[in-house]
Amino acid sequence: MSDDGCVFCDVVRGTAEASTVHEDDDVVAFMDLHPVTPGHLLVVPRTHAAGLEDLDPELGARVWTVGHRLAKALRRSELECDGINLFLADGEAAFQEVFHVHLHVFPRFAGDGFRISAHWRQAPRRELDATAAAVRQALAALPA
Amino acid sequence: MSDDGCVFCDVVRGTAEASTVHEDDDVVAFMDLHPVTPGHLLVVPRTHAAGLEDLDPELGARVWTVGHRLAKALRRSELECDGINLFLADGEAAFQEVFHVHLHVFPRFAGDGFRISAHWRQAPRRELDATAAAVRQALAALPA
Repeated sequence: MSDDGCVFCDVVRGTAEASTVHEDDDVVAFMDLHPVTPGHLLVVPRTHAAGLEDLDPELGARVWTVGHRLAKALRRSELECDGINLFLADGEAAFQEVFHVHLHVFPRFAGDGFRISAHWRQAPRRELDATAAAVRQALAALPA
Repeated sequence: MSDDGCVFCDVVRGTAEASTVHEDDDVVAFMDLHPVTPGHLLVVPRTHAAGLEDLDPELGARVWTVGHRLAKALRRSELECDGINLFLADGEAAFQEVFHVHLHVFPRFAGDGFRISAHWRQAPRRELDATAAAVRQALAALPA
């Protein structure tokens, strides 16, 4: 299954250029064209899924498992790597740009220029309990 | 197995306060005390592992699978959620602060204040091929 015009489907099929590090029956991993740091990898399922909503859970676990193994490889490689970030953006509001689900795996080191900012604050317990209740309610309504 | 003084081990044991949304034999999920957005969850393995290096791969896949399911619950909940980010920080250089491995799952929406910055640039193919070769070499040397 693939989507016409999906660049990651083209990578999976081998019709788009990519610097590949891993391929198996379920997933392909290759270098991000716009690396945050040298060694920035993307892990994608072979089967097209736009995001988490239409990604088969077992296939998602395969994507994760390969990402975990790639993190270990990055730590042992000759590339600069004192830490690792795994990141997944699901939906445009979450900064997803290519709509074929992909897990980012990239090395981190002091002075690498990667930064996160947010309106962090310590939330009061009553607020956390209320959001937890909303999540539990939605979880209970999900098909098994 | 747990580590003395590990706050997430205390959450798993039930000796630290937490707003929990999911518990099973392998993992526990609860609200982050310092949410990026309302609904910000952490998924942790019950067994202490500081990071990806000492996390059992199958247990890691369980953490992911619960995170995937929680992402679906957030999308269906009453909380504001137009997208989802999954994020994992492995090591101090990668912004890890609690050394019990944890997967962040948080809702995203326009104007939520979460931002990422990096020294992005399009890398030349020869550079991507060279970093891919370094990763493949390290992968080949990893135990199966």
